[in-house]
Amino acid sequence: MAITVVGSVAFDSIETPAGRRERCLGGAATYFALAASFFTQVRVIAVVGEDFGPAEQAPFDARSIDTQGIERAAGKSFFWEGSYLENLNEAKTRTTDLNVFGAFEPKIPDAYRDSEFLFLANIDPVLQRRVRDAMPNVKLVAGDTMNYWINDHKPALLEVLRGLDILLINDTETRTLGGDRNLVKAARAVLAMGPRMLVVKHGEYGATVFHASGPNGEAAERTFRAPALPLEEVVDPTGAGDSFAGGFFGYLASQNGLTPGAFRRAMFYGSVMGSFAVERFGTERLQLLTRHEIDARFEQFRELTHLD
Amino acid sequence: MAITVVGSVAFDSIETPAGRRERCLGGAATYFALAASFFTQVRVIAVVGEDFGPAEQAPFDARSIDTQGIERAAGKSFFWEGSYLENLNEAKTRTTDLNVFGAFEPKIPDAYRDSEFLFLANIDPVLQRRVRDAMPNVKLVAGDTMNYWINDHKPALLEVLRGLDILLINDTETRTLGGDRNLVKAARAVLAMGPRMLVVKHGEYGATVFHASGPNGEAAERTFRAPALPLEEVVDPTGAGDSFAGGFFGYLASQNGLTPGAFRRAMFYGSVMGSFAVERFGTERLQLLTRHEIDARFEQFRELTHLD
Repeated sequence: MAITVVGSVAFDSIETPAGRRERCLGGAATYFALAASFFTQVRVIAVVGEDFGPAEQAPFDARSIDTQGIERAAGKSFFWEGSYLENLNEAKTRTTDLNVFGAFEPKIPDAYRDSEFLFLANIDPVLQRRVRDAMPNVKLVAGDTMNYWINDHKPALLEVLRGLDILLINDTETRTLGGDRNLVKAARAVLAMGPRMLVVKHGEYGATVFHASGPNGEAAERTFRAPALPLEEVVDPTGAGDSFAGGFFGYLASQNGLTPGAFRRAMFYGSVMGSFAVERFGTERLQLLTRHEIDARFEQFRELTHLD
Repeated sequence: MAITVVGSVAFDSIETPAGRRERCLGGAATYFALAASFFTQVRVIAVVGEDFGPAEQAPFDARSIDTQGIERAAGKSFFWEGSYLENLNEAKTRTTDLNVFGAFEPKIPDAYRDSEFLFLANIDPVLQRRVRDAMPNVKLVAGDTMNYWINDHKPALLEVLRGLDILLINDTETRTLGGDRNLVKAARAVLAMGPRMLVVKHGEYGATVFHASGPNGEAAERTFRAPALPLEEVVDPTGAGDSFAGGFFGYLASQNGLTPGAFRRAMFYGSVMGSFAVERFGTERLQLLTRHEIDARFEQFRELTHLD
């Protein structure tokens, strides 16, 4: 089943202990779409500027991603510059130029309207909600956010959360949004805001999915933790979380039934895609990836965690 | 098979967000012995003072732990006072009174000499080595250490590492000892110092075992990660790592063959015992525990991580 994703398509300049890249293809929707494209049809809603050329379009085409919802506007594309020199786990932002993204008005192509899955990547919650409301027939909605929206745009964010099935955020964001240092308590507070599931991404330690209480209060038993691969070299952490989301949601969209087993495997595929993303700069590794490599790493993750 | 453990038996005064306890039974060897006693016969080598009375002896007797190697010396027992008010993941030490521990000369009772497993809890590496050398016939030796010994007593520690099969330390200690920010590279550097296996404890994120390269360089494939239970309340983190070690090593000692499967299950039992230890102050939870509860939580950990 097809996924529509709304979010940023951007240029990133990135510095890490492994080196530096200038203006490579980036943006949350880009990483998400590339990762999810190994599992299902992906359709992107975004805006880019006149600097977005054939070189940037090619990776989408190579993965058969539908980009008719990527609007071309006068001006420059969203540009982000960040450094991981001090801390590989958290980027230090040097520049954020919204450019054409500052006036982004998401437009949904008619051909996208039968999408059964919707992913709201990390953008202004006002825009997330607008897209959500414009696609009332989707079967499953997931989304991401970040501390900036949690701290400074909470009322708008809370409206988005009420319309979400699954929220995917990291430990710090969970603690901030849930208002508790304890992750389990914070997760429960977040789940009370609307989502049925909360996927907390722990970076190098994997990810945990928490469920809202069912009628029999069986939520705790369904908690599931996927590992991350202990990696010898993290070249560039940019996009790891969005790639996790793409693997997770892409795999779910490829399944006939949203069974508990499908969600568990989706958590593993999320971790798998995140582990690939960081092996090279920007989207380089995702562009070179094959489904065979993905499934081989999935088995490696099973080996890494399973008793038998 | 029996385990001999050498380490501290102490009094702890502990402050956490959940409250405060004065002079409760503590010490690395105590937590280790209690945790391991659910799996196999445990024998303790330590020294205590005149303040160690029947109330402190009782928990050992209740678990049939052999304490003839706990020497009674004139003076006071080792005393530690710490606070977790600022950070539940790392104690702030307020007081360390070595007392009788300052002149500790480990003496090994004859009845301990047929022990096939030896655990060197976190004490002066000079003492660790002395005990190791005095028990040349043990089948498997594991040990722990801490940043103080890594930073200020490295030559003595390196001699201990050469005689160890398994080292169990946390992330920070691994990075410091291995001299690399990247955990995998740091682990490889530590393994080059002697141990065949390195168990890195990640606190709330579980633990990972790394193996030294075998003749076919298959080490990476045998890496295994055990989860930790996402806990709603951590009452007192003191002793979690020693309880992990006790569950891990105790389970191994209870097995007929040291198969790869036995090591994987041992990692899970380590996480299980660590998760119980933090539920109450000091050793309270370990004292109340039953094997039935341990196995039930083992199954919960399997549920938490396994795809099928």
